[in-house]
Amino acid sequence: MTTHIGLLGCGTVGATVAEMLLTEKAMLAKRSGQSLALKRILIRDTTKIRNNKIPANLFTTHPDDILNDPDIQIVVEVMGGVEPAKTLSLRAVKSGKLLVTANKHLLALHGVEIFRAAAKANSCVCFEASCGGAIPIVLALTRGLIANEIDQVVGIVNGTCNYILSEMSSTGKSYSTALAEAQAAGFAEPDPTLDVTGGDSAHKLAILASLAFGTNVPFDRIYVSGINTIDDMDLRFGRELGYVCKLLAIAEKHSHGISLRVHPAFVPQKHLLANVNGSFNAIAVVGHASGQTIHYGRGAGGKPTASAIIADIVEAAMGTAPLLFKQLPLLTRRSTAGVIPIQDVSSRHYLRMMVHDKPGMLHQITGILGKLGISLAAMVQHEAHEDQFVPLVIMTHEAPDGKVTQAAAKIDRLKGIRGQTRHIRVIDPAP
Amino acid sequence: MTTHIGLLGCGTVGATVAEMLLTEKAMLAKRSGQSLALKRILIRDTTKIRNNKIPANLFTTHPDDILNDPDIQIVVEVMGGVEPAKTLSLRAVKSGKLLVTANKHLLALHGVEIFRAAAKANSCVCFEASCGGAIPIVLALTRGLIANEIDQVVGIVNGTCNYILSEMSSTGKSYSTALAEAQAAGFAEPDPTLDVTGGDSAHKLAILASLAFGTNVPFDRIYVSGINTIDDMDLRFGRELGYVCKLLAIAEKHSHGISLRVHPAFVPQKHLLANVNGSFNAIAVVGHASGQTIHYGRGAGGKPTASAIIADIVEAAMGTAPLLFKQLPLLTRRSTAGVIPIQDVSSRHYLRMMVHDKPGMLHQITGILGKLGISLAAMVQHEAHEDQFVPLVIMTHEAPDGKVTQAAAKIDRLKGIRGQTRHIRVIDPAP
Repeated sequence: MTTHIGLLGCGTVGATVAEMLLTEKAMLAKRSGQSLALKRILIRDTTKIRNNKIPANLFTTHPDDILNDPDIQIVVEVMGGVEPAKTLSLRAVKSGKLLVTANKHLLALHGVEIFRAAAKANSCVCFEASCGGAIPIVLALTRGLIANEIDQVVGIVNGTCNYILSEMSSTGKSYSTALAEAQAAGFAEPDPTLDVTGGDSAHKLAILASLAFGTNVPFDRIYVSGINTIDDMDLRFGRELGYVCKLLAIAEKHSHGISLRVHPAFVPQKHLLANVNGSFNAIAVVGHASGQTIHYGRGAGGKPTASAIIADIVEAAMGTAPLLFKQLPLLTRRSTAGVIPIQDVSSRHYLRMMVHDKPGMLHQITGILGKLGISLAAMVQHEAHEDQFVPLVIMTHEAPDGKVTQAAAKIDRLKGIRGQTRHIRVIDPAP
Repeated sequence: MTTHIGLLGCGTVGATVAEMLLTEKAMLAKRSGQSLALKRILIRDTTKIRNNKIPANLFTTHPDDILNDPDIQIVVEVMGGVEPAKTLSLRAVKSGKLLVTANKHLLALHGVEIFRAAAKANSCVCFEASCGGAIPIVLALTRGLIANEIDQVVGIVNGTCNYILSEMSSTGKSYSTALAEAQAAGFAEPDPTLDVTGGDSAHKLAILASLAFGTNVPFDRIYVSGINTIDDMDLRFGRELGYVCKLLAIAEKHSHGISLRVHPAFVPQKHLLANVNGSFNAIAVVGHASGQTIHYGRGAGGKPTASAIIADIVEAAMGTAPLLFKQLPLLTRRSTAGVIPIQDVSSRHYLRMMVHDKPGMLHQITGILGKLGISLAAMVQHEAHEDQFVPLVIMTHEAPDGKVTQAAAKIDRLKGIRGQTRHIRVIDPAP
């Protein structure tokens, strides 16, 4: 029995999915037992078709050609962005078509609505490709680790940021140079805002956290700080102290809620996450029975993303995905997580300030930290050559984020401090 | 609707599964939507019951109490070994009960027979726990990566060996000291033979390779060499050259068949696999679309293994596992892989010999290598202190295994060579 598929969108990922479905049909049938037939592809403008591996008669500019076609059982949404993806996805699931989507932006903001509509219509939503590209992390959280209470998810989920930070770390380049080179090499978009500000990572975190904890995640309660303010000087100091800087997406269970945050963080050099370089992604999950598992691979790109999308198509075609969707509370969840604000989250902290090299400054700074209950674990002061402002680096013991932010603001108001205190959280993931 | 479960065996893993099913029933129901009830546990001798978290009336010494109980839908086999596990597993699937097993030994040797019996009876076999403990690697190969032609699987799949090698590497201990300490710390069995000789890794490789390539794997065609002949001197030389020694299980696709081998191997220090330490496992998979993914976690122990077993129980109870089993050719495979002998597999090689420090030795050795077409990439000779035999280390360029074995045998017959040439393959996994 052949399963007919309609594709919404034909960018890099969509075109790769189409090509694989068309040219690798026999291999896919051999491995999966499913006969998959791509029937139609929605695009905006047929005059722009450039892909000669895809027969021109598959393209249409009319959504109805897919959404009203009773032959098409599976709709694959690879348009990205919120609209028209949302409207078309809702139409698809409401008409009983099985939805496969790679759209993290859409799911982070409107996942609840789409999942409920799918459940109501006896349809389903598959979204392996929305987080971590080829990495089967949705599968791990919804199936492989289902017997666990999840304590923590820590992910490097944006390849652009990881590429830029890896380049800055290994070569000493500045952020702007590394970004420009990443753009030239195709690892960063012409407009990299959503990546470098942490927004894309936050989208993925919302999805991963909702699966890890089985609750809806209010997207606007995620604390987000990007890599666009990272100074290469701090990466050097971090290395001296034994740390590597990564943009992490972190969801943690606490006794009275969960915390959700995306920010640059120092990870101990020996931890596997510190050794995830270039455009690769990795997600570490800590379960009460499993302990830590780490899931590593290519987080973006046409083929890795198509690998995840076609895996979803296969499970939709087999009937296993709808059968799971019907039964798994993780997917049809009703409750919304109580989110602990970043101020109340404790970790170790790296602080670096530019300090006028005069007596008494250190005394004032340690006084501010001491009054707020922040104790010091290590300190590094390097000699200045160009002027009398020297970088002072402080590593704290564990302290609430809010106290450290307060301390930094007070330090910034001291006479003898130039610019703003740089603050990078230190994460000690499970072994 | 409640699903009733019968357990065959109650060792470390079985007891943990039983405890989780009994004490974490509510959490499991909340996360998975399934009501799971443990009904009976088969043990050999009821006088040996020591676990007071499990009600004594669950235990039985009669297999029929489980296999003939029409209420019991899922049978979990955690006895280990071939018999009576094989007979009981076959009885279970033939009577239509869904089988969950952690038994890699059984599946490596008799998987084909059990899978066919299950398919015939409309039952299924779930075996996530047979490879890599908590790591959802069976899930990844059968579902997440199903759209890929798999080119290579490289795994660290035996925690005992990895613990011993990690200890030897980090402390310079000898093999026998590291093994004794691993036994004292509970990381090695009192009889570690199956682990240290590579047999356990070979069992897991047979299962992983059968899923990766969708063929039956003749277990006796796997080349197996253990860690029990590793000299700590070679780990030190390896480190000097930038490598870490791991016991690897490797399955690779070649143009005219597959290769299957378990042996100690040098992995470049920078590769993630080289940084998998202690008793952890990791499996790297290279797919044609996904690129490399790596799956890391605890490969053994009660809770990590129970995490995988209960995940399988949940999918069996949901009906997704039997639905998949019916349709996936990877599981009901008919063909048997053509296996390329180790002699014909090419890689780089590390050779170390104890050479009498006299003129002409190096000339003779390089002559033997040259005649067999093996070219040198690097050489290290250290000074001897205790006598006139000095270690000579050679790294070759890529060369067929058989040629290198021949060369080593010839070198061993030279006058001026003491003992046997040590040979460790160098593996360069995908980035």
